[in-house]
Amino acid sequence: MRDTEELWRDFARSIRTAEDYIASLRGRRMNIFFMGEHVSEPVDHPVIRPSINAMAETYRLASERPQLATAHSDIAGSAVNRFLHVPIKPGDLVGKHEMQRELGRRTGTCFQRCVGLDAISTCHSITFDIDASTGTDYHHRFLTFLRRAQTANVVIGGAMTDPKGDRSKPPHQQSDPDLFLRVVRRDEDGIYVSGAKMHQTGAVNSHWLIFMPTMRMTEADRDWSVVGAVRVDAPGLTYIVGRQTNDTRIVDGGRMDAGNAQFAGQEALIVFDNVFVPREHVFMDGEWQYASTIVERFTTYHRSSYVCKTGLGDVLIGAAATAADHNGVSNASHIRDKLVEMTHLNETIYSSCMAGAHQAKPMASGAYVNDEMLSNVAKHNVTRFPYEIARLAQDIAGGLIVTMPSEKDLQNNEVGPLIRKFLQGRDGIEVIDRMRILRLIENMTIGRNAVGYLTESLHGAGSPQAQRVQIARAMKVEEKKSLAKKLAGVSERPG
Amino acid sequence: MRDTEELWRDFARSIRTAEDYIASLRGRRMNIFFMGEHVSEPVDHPVIRPSINAMAETYRLASERPQLATAHSDIAGSAVNRFLHVPIKPGDLVGKHEMQRELGRRTGTCFQRCVGLDAISTCHSITFDIDASTGTDYHHRFLTFLRRAQTANVVIGGAMTDPKGDRSKPPHQQSDPDLFLRVVRRDEDGIYVSGAKMHQTGAVNSHWLIFMPTMRMTEADRDWSVVGAVRVDAPGLTYIVGRQTNDTRIVDGGRMDAGNAQFAGQEALIVFDNVFVPREHVFMDGEWQYASTIVERFTTYHRSSYVCKTGLGDVLIGAAATAADHNGVSNASHIRDKLVEMTHLNETIYSSCMAGAHQAKPMASGAYVNDEMLSNVAKHNVTRFPYEIARLAQDIAGGLIVTMPSEKDLQNNEVGPLIRKFLQGRDGIEVIDRMRILRLIENMTIGRNAVGYLTESLHGAGSPQAQRVQIARAMKVEEKKSLAKKLAGVSERPG
Amino acid sequence: MRDTEELWRDFARSIRTAEDYIASLRGRRMNIFFMGEHVSEPVDHPVIRPSINAMAETYRLASERPQLATAHSDIAGSAVNRFLHVPIKPGDLVGKHEMQRELGRRTGTCFQRCVGLDAISTCHSITFDIDASTGTDYHHRFLTFLRRAQTANVVIGGAMTDPKGDRSKPPHQQSDPDLFLRVVRRDEDGIYVSGAKMHQTGAVNSHWLIFMPTMRMTEADRDWSVVGAVRVDAPGLTYIVGRQTNDTRIVDGGRMDAGNAQFAGQEALIVFDNVFVPREHVFMDGEWQYASTIVERFTTYHRSSYVCKTGLGDVLIGAAATAADHNGVSNASHIRDKLVEMTHLNETIYSSCMAGAHQAKPMASGAYVNDEMLSNVAKHNVTRFPYEIARLAQDIAGGLIVTMPSEKDLQNNEVGPLIRKFLQGRDGIEVIDRMRILRLIENMTIGRNAVGYLTESLHGAGSPQAQRVQIARAMKVEEKKSLAKKLAGVSERPG
Amino acid sequence: MRDTEELWRDFARSIRTAEDYIASLRGRRMNIFFMGEHVSEPVDHPVIRPSINAMAETYRLASERPQLATAHSDIAGSAVNRFLHVPIKPGDLVGKHEMQRELGRRTGTCFQRCVGLDAISTCHSITFDIDASTGTDYHHRFLTFLRRAQTANVVIGGAMTDPKGDRSKPPHQQSDPDLFLRVVRRDEDGIYVSGAKMHQTGAVNSHWLIFMPTMRMTEADRDWSVVGAVRVDAPGLTYIVGRQTNDTRIVDGGRMDAGNAQFAGQEALIVFDNVFVPREHVFMDGEWQYASTIVERFTTYHRSSYVCKTGLGDVLIGAAATAADHNGVSNASHIRDKLVEMTHLNETIYSSCMAGAHQAKPMASGAYVNDEMLSNVAKHNVTRFPYEIARLAQDIAGGLIVTMPSEKDLQNNEVGPLIRKFLQGRDGIEVIDRMRILRLIENMTIGRNAVGYLTESLHGAGSPQAQRVQIARAMKVEEKKSLAKKLAGVSERPG
Repeated sequence: MRDTEELWRDFARSIRTAEDYIASLRGRRMNIFFMGEHVSEPVDHPVIRPSINAMAETYRLASERPQLATAHSDIAGSAVNRFLHVPIKPGDLVGKHEMQRELGRRTGTCFQRCVGLDAISTCHSITFDIDASTGTDYHHRFLTFLRRAQTANVVIGGAMTDPKGDRSKPPHQQSDPDLFLRVVRRDEDGIYVSGAKMHQTGAVNSHWLIFMPTMRMTEADRDWSVVGAVRVDAPGLTYIVGRQTNDTRIVDGGRMDAGNAQFAGQEALIVFDNVFVPREHVFMDGEWQYASTIVERFTTYHRSSYVCKTGLGDVLIGAAATAADHNGVSNASHIRDKLVEMTHLNETIYSSCMAGAHQAKPMASGAYVNDEMLSNVAKHNVTRFPYEIARLAQDIAGGLIVTMPSEKDLQNNEVGPLIRKFLQGRDGIEVIDRMRILRLIENMTIGRNAVGYLTESLHGAGSPQAQRVQIARAMKVEEKKSLAKKLAGVSERPG
Repeated sequence: MRDTEELWRDFARSIRTAEDYIASLRGRRMNIFFMGEHVSEPVDHPVIRPSINAMAETYRLASERPQLATAHSDIAGSAVNRFLHVPIKPGDLVGKHEMQRELGRRTGTCFQRCVGLDAISTCHSITFDIDASTGTDYHHRFLTFLRRAQTANVVIGGAMTDPKGDRSKPPHQQSDPDLFLRVVRRDEDGIYVSGAKMHQTGAVNSHWLIFMPTMRMTEADRDWSVVGAVRVDAPGLTYIVGRQTNDTRIVDGGRMDAGNAQFAGQEALIVFDNVFVPREHVFMDGEWQYASTIVERFTTYHRSSYVCKTGLGDVLIGAAATAADHNGVSNASHIRDKLVEMTHLNETIYSSCMAGAHQAKPMASGAYVNDEMLSNVAKHNVTRFPYEIARLAQDIAGGLIVTMPSEKDLQNNEVGPLIRKFLQGRDGIEVIDRMRILRLIENMTIGRNAVGYLTESLHGAGSPQAQRVQIARAMKVEEKKSLAKKLAGVSERPG
Repeated sequence: MRDTEELWRDFARSIRTAEDYIASLRGRRMNIFFMGEHVSEPVDHPVIRPSINAMAETYRLASERPQLATAHSDIAGSAVNRFLHVPIKPGDLVGKHEMQRELGRRTGTCFQRCVGLDAISTCHSITFDIDASTGTDYHHRFLTFLRRAQTANVVIGGAMTDPKGDRSKPPHQQSDPDLFLRVVRRDEDGIYVSGAKMHQTGAVNSHWLIFMPTMRMTEADRDWSVVGAVRVDAPGLTYIVGRQTNDTRIVDGGRMDAGNAQFAGQEALIVFDNVFVPREHVFMDGEWQYASTIVERFTTYHRSSYVCKTGLGDVLIGAAATAADHNGVSNASHIRDKLVEMTHLNETIYSSCMAGAHQAKPMASGAYVNDEMLSNVAKHNVTRFPYEIARLAQDIAGGLIVTMPSEKDLQNNEVGPLIRKFLQGRDGIEVIDRMRILRLIENMTIGRNAVGYLTESLHGAGSPQAQRVQIARAMKVEEKKSLAKKLAGVSERPG
Repeated sequence: MRDTEELWRDFARSIRTAEDYIASLRGRRMNIFFMGEHVSEPVDHPVIRPSINAMAETYRLASERPQLATAHSDIAGSAVNRFLHVPIKPGDLVGKHEMQRELGRRTGTCFQRCVGLDAISTCHSITFDIDASTGTDYHHRFLTFLRRAQTANVVIGGAMTDPKGDRSKPPHQQSDPDLFLRVVRRDEDGIYVSGAKMHQTGAVNSHWLIFMPTMRMTEADRDWSVVGAVRVDAPGLTYIVGRQTNDTRIVDGGRMDAGNAQFAGQEALIVFDNVFVPREHVFMDGEWQYASTIVERFTTYHRSSYVCKTGLGDVLIGAAATAADHNGVSNASHIRDKLVEMTHLNETIYSSCMAGAHQAKPMASGAYVNDEMLSNVAKHNVTRFPYEIARLAQDIAGGLIVTMPSEKDLQNNEVGPLIRKFLQGRDGIEVIDRMRILRLIENMTIGRNAVGYLTESLHGAGSPQAQRVQIARAMKVEEKKSLAKKLAGVSERPG
């Protein structure tokens, strides 16, 4: 498959609906493993399928609410799915965040399509900048790629995090050079890359992957300073899907035990073994000076993408309020107060994300990027508040979320009736509905979707310390010292 | 002074500069008390003067940075001070908040002019709404008043908080009817009001006052449902300026002991005794149904005005960083980390305020008001984070902020040299500069401007519980329950 | 089995070792269900077994460190397992808490034997008090029971939490009278009880159960005011073991995926259907006035028993520190600082528990009970700090805890080598050891033992609001008002 | 005054009562400065007197409740004031902490006598240890000194904190050698010391001072490694009393404006200029190896002494509850909840302090010292919780605490009646009583005693980072790693 045209031939028919999308995933020949076994058809795998369903909602929303989930792209010359639209005004980022919250509300989990959007947004300006200073033609290549992707309406995954090995060393000093993804060979048609990318969100559910460097590079790291796009079924790619808390509940328990049977997230380890990338899909090769800028722009976009967690917060607040109803305590002042606190924290996250979108700044390519300080502040709040919201949800829900019998017990002839008798809440509430809501709260606070709501809120788009480093860099402390000195009557002196 | 024209004659010459403004305050015949004594000329009172200086900065900023601190008003048909400009697009609120932060950075205290702006913004839409439903001409009256105020460039104070007496009773059931401001008499020229307004920010430093009801009214509270404007020197008005922490430092210590000698806030108790309000300056009289809307709109505007505290936060972060420099510990990781935390909290406040401005909503009159949820969330963060920022500033500064000798000791021949010897910090730092910065931190965290930075952040524009009530009202819990039920597979039933 | 002697015949041989204990559980004819299936032999059930192992450690510790885990009982006239020893001096409670922390450190989970200890401690003083005022002989009966239990060294479970149904109604007004456990029949040999107890810790792993009322009773609730002891295999008892997060990992994944393969907690719903309790094992029957005292004493004991979570905290701090070692970042200042914060919070919990033990108060029976205020304060800290400790552990560990491949992938010939290659951390660390530690952190923060470390820390021994009610009751606000009034110069007046 | 006997002659008559104590302070010839003026008689100085009153309460309590505030000393062979009693069993430390809380409740401020107690407790074991290893006779000298002090019942101040200058350098490398207190000369009768001690609590109100090194010393710092006792009126000593927030309120306002007119704290800068210390009063001279141990023991004692702040917390909780009464809102659920939160935080501090006392460890001299980890944890909580308690008190009290008119306004014929009319709260409450309570809350949260309740809670006995360093040292991380590795199945290997 050395011909770029051929690579795109499979995507000639645009994906329109959620159903189209799911159909598009069938029959690919990918090398996927989960729990020690090769997965021949992920679409039919009971543990993987909920993550496909979540991704499919990004298509469904575009069908149902095009104003929210599509945007006109000058590149395609038509309306495209907003997940394929490079933001060219603050309103595009505002719209993106509103869409992300809505998808969080619909799925209660990670719908996996943001990384790719943030990757293309980053590539747009970076390829422009590199070309401007070095005379390369990356930007044109990238626009061609993006136009095709927009027209085909494919899912693009973004792949950034390398294994890193010994964190005190740059790529070229690692004992194993593959611990950062790198170019192992170049020929006239393109390049060959090897290495791995970790924690790859929705990897199996994507059509294409854009890989990018994960940190600042030095001149000696030229071969590791590479950006490009490959099909997910390119020869040489292997996927190992990670285990999630309660991932097998859907199999061993049932829909109720799963809590949210329909939707889940997905992260995989992707191994690249001598994977060919045709020249037209190489968007950077060796321009090591741009690696840190790529990371900064990408994280600035992506940290604000965590606004999606406020959609999950909406679901969890609603679930807690429903549990309180079922227990007949929704009027207790302490319950009401906890719902207010959950809302306050959730909206605080929302406000940091939205402020950074409204105050986005333009770049040379014409693309806009969120305000850097506010985007870091937003993500930093995301590393804290969902944990407290989850704790409050558990507080309201009661201990039953972790001691409740299984759906199979409920179906059992001997103990089912006992459960119905003794788990009765407020009059008029079906026991099974009470149990369903409690399982949803378990799912989001200590179950499968707690992976996305909590731990990935902590580490996705950079761990807390990464934000603190950025905040330190952006906090203009010298300017603030001047303000203080002026008011205190301290004369400014050099040094 | 029954003739409105006459009331405005004194303001025929527009106030242009900070100096004009200060001059305009001289020679008024107001009944002002402070610490048991009549204040004949507040401009020359050493404790009151810093609060006048802070207000004057609102004029200075307009001169120095007109783009930031003025705006074109269709009402006046010209550029006006932004503190007199009713917002008619989200950008006006964004600009307002940027101006407020800048003034916080310049003064390190409350500059007192926001209440009036939020009062006129509220009156604009409320008078419009009342007229639309009852056929009154309040809106026209109000626009006439505002045009004059804009042209004259006067300071308008907003007066809302009544003494309230027994909080479990509405105005008409209070044993003393004056515990809420009310109309005591009406004649053909206007109305006469009696009562009091508490905690009035910058009252003595204003030219005009707009008074408004402080809470929801019932039909029996018609006489208490009144809005109008009076000159601050109207017969029947008495002002008792409140004591602030360390208010007399400037007198008994000196500039250094004061910490921020130039700027301070001001709050006064205003007593109205049969004060005449000419008909042209009455903007509501008896329309009790609108009282709660007035309060909601005003607080939605005013809660976001607390963005000014991020300007104070900038000063305090700068002061703490300078203190760390002076102590030679600015590179210690825990110091750096505390500065980052302070910045993170400060910018979180900023982001909630700005998001609510960007997402402002239009009203029938054409005026825009901040998003209600976000404005309440913003203010709720203001009731928490400045306390933690202040604690961290004290942590960085060290205990000396509360054990340090006086400026007079420093000037004393015997102990001055001892202080210079033993308070020496890092080489090259003047002891007096070190002391000045520590006094500024004292000023903002446990001194005069802590009044504004902490306690007023807690209670201004409504105490924390008031925001929680609003958040509860706006949190759409039924909608959130539906989201949860859908994901959990719970069927929606009536009830 | 109407004869008490006969009921004890099976326990004639004292249980000495952990192995004895496990053997003692075999071959009982209990009606146990898990995931819809009858469990014929819990000892051999892979999901239940880890909870038995945890309980067995209470025996092992007594063998290995008798000074810590046994005490001389005047009742038995010999040394007994400390879990069967009624505290008769503050030192007994101090020793109990040290033992509990140590068992937390050994198991990393809930070892399930505290409820029974806290139940017998409560019965000791309550039976004494009832007898003293009403002339019954409950105390003698109880001491006889306890002596046998001590000699046999059995596990006693404590059963308190009723289903409660409509929480706004007392037992006698519930539509279904069984929603609180109650006496359904009395004959000359004893009583018959029906109802259920929820969230019963270690129920299946116990030999005997003591049931007690769960809240304040009224005179009309006499039949619900009952305390007694039954064998876990008494006819009429049914157990439904609750599902826990990742409970089946040990089956579908393997030891590594389980995180802590050896130990886990257990909670079950116990249904009582006309269960006979011989008179000698009835310790209260109808004395409704004592129900609230039972609850208060039991919760005062039991809230401090949550000191065990500091043992789990020790494990989690150690796991996070090890993960940092593996990543080569143990010297980073922010990592070190997070370990300090975790320790600070953990020791704060410890200190509240220990202070309440040292300041225990004697009761009429001679038994001692923890200081009520401090015990509530301790538990209230337990409802907060483990969540923050867990968040910090996840922060240090990194996102891999939720995206890591399965043990089965590691064993797979194709992907196993890839995992070994790319998950390599600091030199000299085995990849499998790195994975094991990360799985342990998953286990304690979002996996099976997070059930005990987090959610049960929130709800066990009463939810947060229950502690707040107790703190409100014990906070002596009138006394504190007097202190303030005296210093402020406010005269005290009646009312 | 080279003769030790002579130095003690003035103290021949034991101080018995609070009145005796105050009398004992009169007529000393000390070189004291405050606000640039020499203070001839501190007892009569209106700003200093409240701090003397607070100290006097340590005598009054001993008279009124000898069981609480005295203890039998084997050194004196009689009962002595507990502030002069070296703890020789855990119960002594428990008793000490109960006394400290009670004095906090009585004074609402820092009563200043703890530093001296913690200094003598430290000297007891340190002199013993030095003698044991080096054959000196410091312990005997110290016991002789202490016996005299106990018999005379004097106030001993402890002086530790040196100015430190450039914090990156040890004493012998400072450009000015006086930046750490040091021996400047030795003769056959004793030594001469120069330097300064900062933030000296209650210095002016003491009779004797014990000075000690402030940090780890090196061999080159021998001359700075010195411990000794001097009379506060020894030639060469100068005191500069620090300014406190609102210190002059008592002068410029009146008793009400002061908030707590009777009691306050005190800190001074003490300068030593060639001060003679007779050999009998030298307790260490040159044994630099012991300097760090002195600091560790002293801080371990002293950090727990901050239990006194729970007494202040009691007052503040009472004041807030009274303010709520006055406002007629004491039954509002959010008010009640805030009082519970304040109590919970206050008792958490108490429990950490008490646990460390109960679990005190003996040293070679027979003296006991608090558990090191728990004492650091206790103090670390003190650096956080009083700030939150203060914030909640302000929340409950309302904004009036910072906008209220002066007492002099209340006394004014014109505005006094207006204040009485408009500040009326709930029926039956005197306006002046309402104002008094609000002034007390101001005093403790943003006024004079906020100095002690907040800032000194942060920095006294070591700033937050000092506790974190100690916690890091004591947290046994290797032991915790072993626990985790064992449960995770990780084999322990060297390194």
